[in-house]
Amino acid sequence: MDIQEQLKEAFEALQNKRALIHHITNYVTVNDCANVVLAIGASPIMADELSEVEEMVGICDALVLNIGTANERTITSMLKAGKAANAKGIPVVLDPVGVGATAFRRQSVAKLMDTISFSVIRGNMAEIKTIAGLKAKSAGVDSLEEESDGAKIALNLAKKLGCVIAITGKIDVVSDGTLCYTLQNGDMALTQVTGTGCMSTSLIGSFIGASNNAFASALAGILTMSISGELAEKSKGIGSFHTSLINRIGQMDLRTILERYNVSLIK
Amino acid sequence: MDIQEQLKEAFEALQNKRALIHHITNYVTVNDCANVVLAIGASPIMADELSEVEEMVGICDALVLNIGTANERTITSMLKAGKAANAKGIPVVLDPVGVGATAFRRQSVAKLMDTISFSVIRGNMAEIKTIAGLKAKSAGVDSLEEESDGAKIALNLAKKLGCVIAITGKIDVVSDGTLCYTLQNGDMALTQVTGTGCMSTSLIGSFIGASNNAFASALAGILTMSISGELAEKSKGIGSFHTSLINRIGQMDLRTILERYNVSLIK
Amino acid sequence: MDIQEQLKEAFEALQNKRALIHHITNYVTVNDCANVVLAIGASPIMADELSEVEEMVGICDALVLNIGTANERTITSMLKAGKAANAKGIPVVLDPVGVGATAFRRQSVAKLMDTISFSVIRGNMAEIKTIAGLKAKSAGVDSLEEESDGAKIALNLAKKLGCVIAITGKIDVVSDGTLCYTLQNGDMALTQVTGTGCMSTSLIGSFIGASNNAFASALAGILTMSISGELAEKSKGIGSFHTSLINRIGQMDLRTILERYNVSLIK
Repeated sequence: MDIQEQLKEAFEALQNKRALIHHITNYVTVNDCANVVLAIGASPIMADELSEVEEMVGICDALVLNIGTANERTITSMLKAGKAANAKGIPVVLDPVGVGATAFRRQSVAKLMDTISFSVIRGNMAEIKTIAGLKAKSAGVDSLEEESDGAKIALNLAKKLGCVIAITGKIDVVSDGTLCYTLQNGDMALTQVTGTGCMSTSLIGSFIGASNNAFASALAGILTMSISGELAEKSKGIGSFHTSLINRIGQMDLRTILERYNVSLIK
Repeated sequence: MDIQEQLKEAFEALQNKRALIHHITNYVTVNDCANVVLAIGASPIMADELSEVEEMVGICDALVLNIGTANERTITSMLKAGKAANAKGIPVVLDPVGVGATAFRRQSVAKLMDTISFSVIRGNMAEIKTIAGLKAKSAGVDSLEEESDGAKIALNLAKKLGCVIAITGKIDVVSDGTLCYTLQNGDMALTQVTGTGCMSTSLIGSFIGASNNAFASALAGILTMSISGELAEKSKGIGSFHTSLINRIGQMDLRTILERYNVSLIK
Repeated sequence: MDIQEQLKEAFEALQNKRALIHHITNYVTVNDCANVVLAIGASPIMADELSEVEEMVGICDALVLNIGTANERTITSMLKAGKAANAKGIPVVLDPVGVGATAFRRQSVAKLMDTISFSVIRGNMAEIKTIAGLKAKSAGVDSLEEESDGAKIALNLAKKLGCVIAITGKIDVVSDGTLCYTLQNGDMALTQVTGTGCMSTSLIGSFIGASNNAFASALAGILTMSISGELAEKSKGIGSFHTSLINRIGQMDLRTILERYNVSLIK
């Protein structure tokens, strides 16, 4: 499938099925994540109690795990939910927020990756390099990495893990281990609102819940965010940009994506 | 009291007393809940630590319990807070978010209902049917139920439990076990923003904190949300609608409610 | 340094260093806090897991502790993070939300103050009076105090604790124990949005992370919030005011502060 076909499949799947997306996610950006899932046409459910996550994920179409404010309790819930999702063939998406920042985050992500087969892992360059076992420069949850070698890193890590790797930043990269695309949409204003990374992951989760096509979902989710960022009103300030971003995500469709996307096949 | 009298009492009570509303609620929609409580003229306080909830509820005028992201720890806090509220005559409102989704939620709500006398329970049709012991169709936290038998269900459950039952959806239903109203205000856009149900419950909590009139508060809280949804700007998208909804809640008054409400007395 | 010099230093420091601000804070207002930290030009990171907070604070430039929805677990994390920050010379800012409301809050703040040297403590009059051991009138997290004796209270408490005390309300007061300023900017609309106090504290944290000048940071953080509140659009309602407030914080600069600030040196 070429990229137009991938994107067509992703958007059509969402129209044909109101996917239910189980999140175990951070409390900083959770409201925005729920709202973008609704905006794109899926349904969010957030639940992290250990005794219910297995049952909850069983009624859902995808699981999004985001470690932004994880603690020992919620990591345990993520492990249980992820195993249950794998057992039932429900796709799981990981957002390893700030994984390089502390040993707790590195070890938690290592445990998650040992236990769960992920369909997509989305992070910034520093997060993905940390997962790939490479040295990474970061400041808290932000990457300070040059992005020139993103394609190679994504391709190798995707091949090694057998999942789709999505690196977001000035240039986004998506690879399934065989193909690798760079995506050059977006706007710097997206870095001035907290949670645009988390929201991108929730959008990927929304698409994959409907289509179960990991590669198409990563491409569609990231382009939805970056093109919405291009189209959103920036003149009034970043509070208004944040609101307008949600407007644009709610109005996004295949036609707009195909008109504006700037994607190159690297391999 | 006819419905105009009920609504008049609810709005006048809020003007005469800045009610303090203790919430033990979910982290997805908590910011919006706090903001609608302020918008309508009450004061929110969120506190869930077991060792403080008894004391906290004692200084408040109403308690709102919302199980959206509850866990074992917070359910224990809810039980303690609810018992303390009952002992002191402080009204308690329950929002049984997604109660049908998992055994944990069903059992938690059963424990809450065994332990606490609620003044109002507000949920969607699937949530209220689950509480009534009826089979319910839901998708996560959303109801997939037809709404034709809402009046009967609300009336019977309200009578059985001795509290006000409010079912929100395309048509809203409020019953105290003797009377039953259907409310046909609202707008589909309200389903595209996360937490409009939670916010409705917090509005009911705000009114009941001021008036201690459960029936009037359920009517006033639901009409405030649904009529604000009608009046809010929808042309720019759902991010702007969300902002405009808060604007409208902050501007809501008795006159606007009485001009626009579409309420039928069923029994 | 006179006040213009203080403010100049605070704003220039932020321009010269993208400070990373570690928060252990409440889940009600955390998204707004993260967004105002980004808006003013710093970077937020929220993390409360006991096993990572020591390491996390070590890579940050300031620590903000806010007890709004604290529980036993997060207070333990705050104690550990604060001690680590002190050991490394990283400034710590405290927001004692609703400290007078319950014994748990009073005891938690007492423990925090026994264990940690704070650079700035910001609260409303009731919160600061409670910390000062004075009788205080509050309603939940809101102060019901007259503000006439704020300067004396701030000055004495700052001297006693050896830190900067900031009292926000109709009139704001900032003292380092030697000097004391009153600040008469702001707008009543700021009381109608939840979390403007928390956001002020996060702004102080952002300035202090860049400058390590506690007095200048308290002045700059509070004036940024109050002058943004003056400039923000109020005609459309409080949802729009909230959005516009974030716009204004993102546009705030030294020139605007110096044009509008209404500050008196009391001592």
